[in-house]
Amino acid sequence: MPVLGFGCWKLPEDSTAETVCSAIGSGWRHLDCAADYANEKQVGEGIRLAIERGHIGSRSDLFITSKLWNNFHRREHVGPALARTLADLGTDYVDLYLVHFPIPLKYVDPAVRYPPGWIHDPEAEAPRMEEDNVTLAETWGALEEECLAGRCRRIGLSNHNVQAIRGLLAGCKIPPAVLQVELHPFLTQEKLIRFCKSRDIVVTGFSPLGAGSYVALGTAAPEESVLREEAVKAIASKHGVSPAQVILRWGLQRGTTLVPKTTKPARMVENIDIFGFELAEDEMGALSGLNKGRRFNDPGVFCELAFGSFCPIYE
Amino acid sequence: MPVLGFGCWKLPEDSTAETVCSAIGSGWRHLDCAADYANEKQVGEGIRLAIERGHIGSRSDLFITSKLWNNFHRREHVGPALARTLADLGTDYVDLYLVHFPIPLKYVDPAVRYPPGWIHDPEAEAPRMEEDNVTLAETWGALEEECLAGRCRRIGLSNHNVQAIRGLLAGCKIPPAVLQVELHPFLTQEKLIRFCKSRDIVVTGFSPLGAGSYVALGTAAPEESVLREEAVKAIASKHGVSPAQVILRWGLQRGTTLVPKTTKPARMVENIDIFGFELAEDEMGALSGLNKGRRFNDPGVFCELAFGSFCPIYE
Repeated sequence: MPVLGFGCWKLPEDSTAETVCSAIGSGWRHLDCAADYANEKQVGEGIRLAIERGHIGSRSDLFITSKLWNNFHRREHVGPALARTLADLGTDYVDLYLVHFPIPLKYVDPAVRYPPGWIHDPEAEAPRMEEDNVTLAETWGALEEECLAGRCRRIGLSNHNVQAIRGLLAGCKIPPAVLQVELHPFLTQEKLIRFCKSRDIVVTGFSPLGAGSYVALGTAAPEESVLREEAVKAIASKHGVSPAQVILRWGLQRGTTLVPKTTKPARMVENIDIFGFELAEDEMGALSGLNKGRRFNDPGVFCELAFGSFCPIYE
Repeated sequence: MPVLGFGCWKLPEDSTAETVCSAIGSGWRHLDCAADYANEKQVGEGIRLAIERGHIGSRSDLFITSKLWNNFHRREHVGPALARTLADLGTDYVDLYLVHFPIPLKYVDPAVRYPPGWIHDPEAEAPRMEEDNVTLAETWGALEEECLAGRCRRIGLSNHNVQAIRGLLAGCKIPPAVLQVELHPFLTQEKLIRFCKSRDIVVTGFSPLGAGSYVALGTAAPEESVLREEAVKAIASKHGVSPAQVILRWGLQRGTTLVPKTTKPARMVENIDIFGFELAEDEMGALSGLNKGRRFNDPGVFCELAFGSFCPIYE
């Protein structure tokens, strides 16, 4: 699994194909996708463009991650959900398939709306989330079948915590290969990482550069940028690299894999160019010392802000 | 369920019977016990004394909570574990039986050591915790059977979080009646309480007075006492009550039940005498405003300090 993945969340539909193709052209070999990002068709188009333009020889040069959306947690919906993702991406397997959130929601027929998002029926008088009762064991059993059938090479979790992982490990046949969670210098989650290492679970950090994507969602203030921290800027200038490169390198050196995203070609080049320098122990410590347990991606906050639905998962 | 329970954790074995009898004599009708507290026999003796001395007419005047210890999570061990608790307490049912921690540990035969504690074999060259793979679904299924057989009237959880509770609710036949967790003005856990209310789960706060029990464990400093907070002292003096009474009343008014403990007769009287005053909204707000997410009872901390075993559950 390439330690750096190109994050596809929030890539705008109309430019996604070109962005993804450029990213592959810039050297990215891991794409971090999800049904919920509403652009898997365009990501697939970007992959085809990249092959056409000779950036890669074939799809097998890539490591593709996708994620099962909340509405498809029931055993009978997992296969069709993955099939739709595969069709959209134009491939017959993903390298990694994650359970996106520990929040089973009531099924929405993809023929009615796809991806279904958080709200059960946006046309309702009082649109809201509708949770479903599905155990992780049920969902995971279906993922294991997909894995055995070769439609996903590895399976894992996103946004789950230690209590959920312990429970899963106690009952599963195929253990999770990866846990993808929010990680940046304001949310370092050392003990979670240490726990995952002790269980041979690779940890992938999303939003590794912090607040960027969350200002528009209303869960971060513009001034909460880890990129503007003096400690980060000082280390960057010492190494002659950018603040973003410092933070990504920090993530790498602490043993996590990362899925930063950008639509800017210059940043695509910059974000993957982090193998030419090394942070010293005191620099690593200074960056980890910025931790304040600040979580920007919390359904217990944003679902209430956005849809008036109370849906905590980190309590 | 009486909103105030008398906490039996750390009551010393030799004085427990008299302490429990005094507590019942002071008006306490709910006893919060656990196999792990290593004093259920003495609590049972205290109950018998209290009946003898006429403080209560019979055992059925009490609400008794006990907890399943970590080594007994497997289906076949739950029944015998509860049977031992019932024999020790001298009763044929508990009113509430909780899964003590979301940490299944390898079985230890009670004939070898009881209660078994955290360490698998204290005589080993390198004594350590040994985790077992048991799902909460398995443990819970056995608790449901005990419930149906009448050996516990209600079942619930302790030290579990939202992801574990969601998973349990999705698959159980009898939903948890109670969640018991650490709660005090330094750890208010509003969202967890709100989640439980939305699922009809009563929340019980342990260590409602804060750091007290944890200084000796090395996970709290003596100066971390919520009782010494200026805001608490000011509110107490305004109402002519003690800081402890203010904090317990705050817990009650926010809709939680509480299990404070003390060995001092004067405190037994004081801690239950919190129905003669009411905190105003601004006082409630000031107390809740002391929150700093400070958890004193965290196996991810104390198991490492005490046994060198890394066992996080709140990550």
